[in-house]
Amino acid sequence: MQFSKGHGTGNDFVLLPDPDGQLDLTPSIVAALCDRRRGIGADGVLRVVRAAKHPEAVAYAGAAEWFMDYWNADGSLAEMCGNGTRVFTRYLISTGLAAPVGGTLPIVTRSGVVRAEVGSAEIGVDLGAPRIGGGGVATLGGLTLAGTAVDCGNPHLVCVLPASIDLAGLDLARSPGFDSALFPDGVNVEFVSSAPPVAGADLHVLMRVYERGSAETLSCGSGACAVAAVALRDAGRTAGVVAVDVPGGRLTLTLDEQSCWLAGPAVLVAHGEIDLAALTA
Amino acid sequence: MQFSKGHGTGNDFVLLPDPDGQLDLTPSIVAALCDRRRGIGADGVLRVVRAAKHPEAVAYAGAAEWFMDYWNADGSLAEMCGNGTRVFTRYLISTGLAAPVGGTLPIVTRSGVVRAEVGSAEIGVDLGAPRIGGGGVATLGGLTLAGTAVDCGNPHLVCVLPASIDLAGLDLARSPGFDSALFPDGVNVEFVSSAPPVAGADLHVLMRVYERGSAETLSCGSGACAVAAVALRDAGRTAGVVAVDVPGGRLTLTLDEQSCWLAGPAVLVAHGEIDLAALTA
Repeated sequence: MQFSKGHGTGNDFVLLPDPDGQLDLTPSIVAALCDRRRGIGADGVLRVVRAAKHPEAVAYAGAAEWFMDYWNADGSLAEMCGNGTRVFTRYLISTGLAAPVGGTLPIVTRSGVVRAEVGSAEIGVDLGAPRIGGGGVATLGGLTLAGTAVDCGNPHLVCVLPASIDLAGLDLARSPGFDSALFPDGVNVEFVSSAPPVAGADLHVLMRVYERGSAETLSCGSGACAVAAVALRDAGRTAGVVAVDVPGGRLTLTLDEQSCWLAGPAVLVAHGEIDLAALTA
Repeated sequence: MQFSKGHGTGNDFVLLPDPDGQLDLTPSIVAALCDRRRGIGADGVLRVVRAAKHPEAVAYAGAAEWFMDYWNADGSLAEMCGNGTRVFTRYLISTGLAAPVGGTLPIVTRSGVVRAEVGSAEIGVDLGAPRIGGGGVATLGGLTLAGTAVDCGNPHLVCVLPASIDLAGLDLARSPGFDSALFPDGVNVEFVSSAPPVAGADLHVLMRVYERGSAETLSCGSGACAVAAVALRDAGRTAGVVAVDVPGGRLTLTLDEQSCWLAGPAVLVAHGEIDLAALTA
């Protein structure tokens, strides 16, 4: 079984080329691939299938050639992943399976067709405008932090830290507490502090994230969208460019009322073959 | 740059074939390779070099053809690694670079020549007889646990749990405490409980380990040797076979006064090429 490994700001993926949808991918194979010690290791698997060859994507085959069949590391199916779509696009372009037209490339996902924007170094993807909700509170150790609920398709709670609290010093070894009546399905919690201006962005912030049901991660695309939306609102704006530094690197978010472009590096680091028998032994 | 990835009971390695010692391997490349999200991810790198082609190994070139140039995940050099030697041997055999003679294969390491024993499924390596020392104490949460110091070339503290304490329930998210006067260079701490008899072994124990300067790991070859030595001593024996179940699988230790054979599975799961420019970008 052929594979590539790549990442976007430290959010990493195993890519499996399967143009004709012939791989018999199962939850246990996906979990074994994503096992960081006994497999390759990744946050998820991106199977690269022609939309026309996959039952979940064939209805969109007229709009986009390729379907991102995204699986979580635990073997469950997932709808969409911003960093995943950026790495998927990098794979299509670098292998020559697809080429952008006018700088963009449409990709079928389980959330419909997503448009990727291909720059010289970075790849962007439109995740759709986040919806800012009401207030909420996160608890962390002895701290109680005020936050804002944001819906990016998945739920977020964005906590902008007061200047007296050091972002780097937060202990995110365990999940922050939150109001489960407000977030019955759990919530991704982002912690944000301001940062000095950078060229090309209206605002610049630092962010750490504790992902729902997971742990602190190096990057979260939808979390960066949520953070950018709150940063713009707090600055009295409805549109603009926000540089969001996650532990894995810099993401650039460009928001207006209709869209939220998530842009940043997306790289492939290795290509090879997996011994499926050894993997699942 | 070509690579393979493999593991022995969950202790995983990136192998770099470099028969003629021409790779310009640096600490930063090793650290980038071992980065689990931005690289391939591993506990260490095993460069596969002919002993005659490496200045540290050329003196042993008459005794063994291949040198295991072992690097820790942080880019520092290491002397020896039991599970690493087993995976290294698997690589030599499966690629056809070497073949065992009479079931054994000598390997040059920074600790001298080590003999690997190649079975049908498992690979064993003689780590040399551990030396049992005096008593010591580890602290963990509110617990104080009595242990035995064991020197396997590196320092260990083996704590056999009383029946009232559940091995699986120990919280090893943080380092156990120990007497730094007794272990000035730190110590690997093993926690052990007894287990039902298994075929082919005189004794059977379960073990978890917190590795010095690292974290809890899925497996530790020298730790398993230390545990087996203490288990045999506690049973009033000086030689025997001990099955040691680590979180990553089963290791079988065969001890007498001169040697400690560490045997278990060693598998290669993937082969491919690394994009060095993308890795270090």
